Amino acid sequence: MVQILENNTEKQLTIGTRIEKVLWDMFDNISHALEDIDGTQLQEQSWTLDEKYQWIEGESSNGITYIDKALRGGNVFEKVGLNYVSKQGQLPPGMTFQGADIVPVESGDEKANQKSTSFFATSTSVVINANNPMVPTAHVNYRYFQIGDGTEPGSWWFGGGGDLTPIYLFEEDAVHFHQVHKEACDKHNSEYYPRFKKWCDQYFYLPHRSECRGVGGLFFDNLQDDNIETLFSFVKTCSEAFIRAYIPIVEKRKDMEFTEQNKYWQRLRRGRYAEFILLHDRGVRFGLDSGIVNTQSVLNCMPGEAFWNYSDEPVSDSPEAKLVEVLRNPREWV
Amino acid sequence: MVQILENNTEKQLTIGTRIEKVLWDMFDNISHALEDIDGTQLQEQSWTLDEKYQWIEGESSNGITYIDKALRGGNVFEKVGLNYVSKQGQLPPGMTFQGADIVPVESGDEKANQKSTSFFATSTSVVINANNPMVPTAHVNYRYFQIGDGTEPGSWWFGGGGDLTPIYLFEEDAVHFHQVHKEACDKHNSEYYPRFKKWCDQYFYLPHRSECRGVGGLFFDNLQDDNIETLFSFVKTCSEAFIRAYIPIVEKRKDMEFTEQNKYWQRLRRGRYAEFILLHDRGVRFGLDSGIVNTQSVLNCMPGEAFWNYSDEPVSDSPEAKLVEVLRNPREWV
Repeated sequence: MVQILENNTEKQLTIGTRIEKVLWDMFDNISHALEDIDGTQLQEQSWTLDEKYQWIEGESSNGITYIDKALRGGNVFEKVGLNYVSKQGQLPPGMTFQGADIVPVESGDEKANQKSTSFFATSTSVVINANNPMVPTAHVNYRYFQIGDGTEPGSWWFGGGGDLTPIYLFEEDAVHFHQVHKEACDKHNSEYYPRFKKWCDQYFYLPHRSECRGVGGLFFDNLQDDNIETLFSFVKTCSEAFIRAYIPIVEKRKDMEFTEQNKYWQRLRRGRYAEFILLHDRGVRFGLDSGIVNTQSVLNCMPGEAFWNYSDEPVSDSPEAKLVEVLRNPREWV
Repeated sequence: MVQILENNTEKQLTIGTRIEKVLWDMFDNISHALEDIDGTQLQEQSWTLDEKYQWIEGESSNGITYIDKALRGGNVFEKVGLNYVSKQGQLPPGMTFQGADIVPVESGDEKANQKSTSFFATSTSVVINANNPMVPTAHVNYRYFQIGDGTEPGSWWFGGGGDLTPIYLFEEDAVHFHQVHKEACDKHNSEYYPRFKKWCDQYFYLPHRSECRGVGGLFFDNLQDDNIETLFSFVKTCSEAFIRAYIPIVEKRKDMEFTEQNKYWQRLRRGRYAEFILLHDRGVRFGLDSGIVNTQSVLNCMPGEAFWNYSDEPVSDSPEAKLVEVLRNPREWV
């Protein structure tokens, strides 16, 4: 870690280095917050690429650092996965970025076809599943991408957001989570919250189930339509907001009583979460298909225990049905 | 069901009707075999499409019959899903089949563009997960597709196969399962077993895990490179072989002792099975993406309980490692 922080200090002035530090702090702060609540140290594993492009264990190397933290079977948390990535690299010749996607350079552009493209990427992503079914699952991810030195128009973008997936709906928790994120957005632009709240409901949607994954939050991708300093500040504020948005909910719900039926419903909902990750999550699919990300890291976001049953429609007017009603009809929480 | 069987008798002479009957018998026979072992009646649900293209419960209607059978939490079986489909329909104008895929008609073909294409499809698919981790999971599916009346060259195909997914490896079980399937193949063509065994190893492969799903069996798709009567007989023989290939293994293993560690490993392997279904299974992806198959039916093949853990690599020389070794290096079993 020391190496990264020293590098950050040396290269203080670039946005890449500053956002790398913001995302590292987010990774570190969330790790500590989770360890404090659970009373358990997270398992840590770092990865680097050897010369033959095999993922091997290692602290950091040649501008590529993957650090995973994980917890399984904790006192409060069933499964937690955190990933930090900072990567400088070269795209293969003939490939470039189009928004958030890696695509072939247009065939007429011979010059671009022949040179490889340097890029810088950094990201922190976190998924938190608790033991108690009254505690919602949370996901947060912020990321920055840059081609070359990021000075060309359209050569950089931010992505990310945070969202909440209750097993049982406590409306006050959804309101709190959204309120904290709305305040973070409003510090920068009053149009951000409604825009990214809607985007979140649209992105975390399972069409085959006609359900949103949860009660939403924020989501944005390929964000570059404002001054880079403005967006940097906005992402920094959001990355700091997550702990305030989520941890008080964990504290409030973690010791509530629950039944075997509640636990069964939790595992069914974990099944839906697994469906979203494996069928729809763009980052996961890219990670697995590209082969350039370590599988163990990509799937660090999977839930701990998932159930499937042929019949899983809840009984009318039950607490379970109340959740599904909200997932099928996203609400304005604040 | 009566209605279907009567229809079968009336249309005795077409291949479509004969294979429909073969697949119905397979569905029915496997259902009864599972009920006999478990001592539990399978839950049954039939579906049809209403005029507004909503899936509703119903026995059968207008040439479309979906029948699902399911069991969860049985005496022997943790989760069983069986699907029977028989469907006559019209593809939308401008669409046709190219092998096993529905694709747009080539734009120059104005005549084909303007008419809708009639098709007939029938399939039985089964996934069986047992409680005892010593009992392997099994999957079997046979299907027939036809455009128009199936008299044009290339206007019909068969697909399917059966494969075995052990949690713990008993080599004699893998040998038995393959032996029965090899004998079924050899009755028709000595080249079938090696060809479809290899295809199975290739299809049921998780590239992100560098593992086969299980110890294989048979797999083929878009099969039309022989006389239709020959292939009909071959598929009929295979569809009848499954019970002989699998049920004796269940009988042999279902009362073996096991530990909590065995159960944990079983659930991790179920996680891999879920990954295959959601990431790679072509039929599942088509079913979910197309929206023309009921989601509850498509996902009837999901495992019951799945676990994920950041670290799930087995200890060297353990029984768990022995399984993974075989999944990474498919063997010739017979």
